[in-house]
Amino acid sequence: MLTKTQIKYIRSLWQTKARKEQNAFIIEGTKIVDEWLRNNQQLKMLIATKEWEIENIELLKQLPNTSIYIIKESELNTLSGLQTANEVMAVVELPENKDIILQNRWYLALDTIQDPGNMGTLIRIADWFGIPAIFCSPDCVDVYNPKVIQAAMGGHLRVNIIEKDLSTFFSSTDLPIYGATLDGESIYNCNAGNAGILLIGNESKGISEKLKLFLTKKITIPRYGGAESLNAAVATGIICAVLLPR
Amino acid sequence: MLTKTQIKYIRSLWQTKARKEQNAFIIEGTKIVDEWLRNNQQLKMLIATKEWEIENIELLKQLPNTSIYIIKESELNTLSGLQTANEVMAVVELPENKDIILQNRWYLALDTIQDPGNMGTLIRIADWFGIPAIFCSPDCVDVYNPKVIQAAMGGHLRVNIIEKDLSTFFSSTDLPIYGATLDGESIYNCNAGNAGILLIGNESKGISEKLKLFLTKKITIPRYGGAESLNAAVATGIICAVLLPR
Repeated sequence: MLTKTQIKYIRSLWQTKARKEQNAFIIEGTKIVDEWLRNNQQLKMLIATKEWEIENIELLKQLPNTSIYIIKESELNTLSGLQTANEVMAVVELPENKDIILQNRWYLALDTIQDPGNMGTLIRIADWFGIPAIFCSPDCVDVYNPKVIQAAMGGHLRVNIIEKDLSTFFSSTDLPIYGATLDGESIYNCNAGNAGILLIGNESKGISEKLKLFLTKKITIPRYGGAESLNAAVATGIICAVLLPR
Repeated sequence: MLTKTQIKYIRSLWQTKARKEQNAFIIEGTKIVDEWLRNNQQLKMLIATKEWEIENIELLKQLPNTSIYIIKESELNTLSGLQTANEVMAVVELPENKDIILQNRWYLALDTIQDPGNMGTLIRIADWFGIPAIFCSPDCVDVYNPKVIQAAMGGHLRVNIIEKDLSTFFSSTDLPIYGATLDGESIYNCNAGNAGILLIGNESKGISEKLKLFLTKKITIPRYGGAESLNAAVATGIICAVLLPR
């Protein structure tokens, strides 16, 4: 049984501000909660239906530090961010915004990505291609937004996501910085090497002027049809598939 | 001034069933309406704010067959499918589900794509790569769903979108059929040639068993990280970028 205060607390976590204040975020759905548990991630609260509890009874014994609440499906629905609640949700502590030491590898940098679906898909792409970290400008959408979590499909568990002032970051690194633009060199012609940073700009405005100054090279996906542009996440997937070493 | 009946009619078009019955769909937003007009597409109704009318006064003179309604922003908001209405929307006639004669080119076939955002992004990808037609299984999301229109960014104007029973279609063509799977040949190793059909499966279930029987080749994007899969639209973009002739 959840108290009124707990219900209010959980619901508040659908908002960015409350997530930062409370230092917590929500994961939802059997698949994502399962993935978090398999990765031995600490959960602060686990809220599930009786059905989920029965199916996961052994798993629940291994969570001595998690407060577990078994509630009715109808109650779960009132807490859920999804259109139809999904048997289980959990409150997780926000990871620290820890910096990493750059290695001789490829990284992703995101300038003002606004759409949560795109952000989640970008994290999923980094996860697929084994990119160890994503650097996000402070004005990107909150990466702990529930829609981002949903679209990233567990990518948060394997990719470091670091908020950074990108100008300062780019000034301090020797890695080449490749920017996805509409007027650069064809991705098929540039010999990209084993390490670098791929910079992706805002969905409608592209890379901001001040960050363009740091680009080692502008790169472009050649177009054969009539579309004005590609979706930011699709473009990133294509560039990773063509450019990254294999 | 719109009548109550007209308001009811417009609102009904947010539903698939009504779109089919009324043989019409809605486009919304300055960018998309502008693109439809520049392509000399016939509009049945155009509904806009005074501000939009003033900016587009010359354009409006060239629409003798369109019923034009200038309404208040607050009224437009009550008709809109977007969170904030966008100055202009229009009712457009549904195009016929016309078949095409296959040429020696690449086509896209979609098996049970369910998410409207994905469907729109897939149309945008086909538009970017100059793919002339997309064949959709009957259980795909309605391609005239407003979210599909929004994500396709005008792709509907340049890509033929044809609903088809894919088994029947595949039985009747000599083009090779390549299926995106998780256990096929690497996209980097298969010499795909100048013509074929790329088949993309459902977001969670992949290509259905009955359609797998028609595949000439299974292809896969090699994975270097921990993600289980890629988003269907991202995977399609990558395969097009690597496989299609250039």
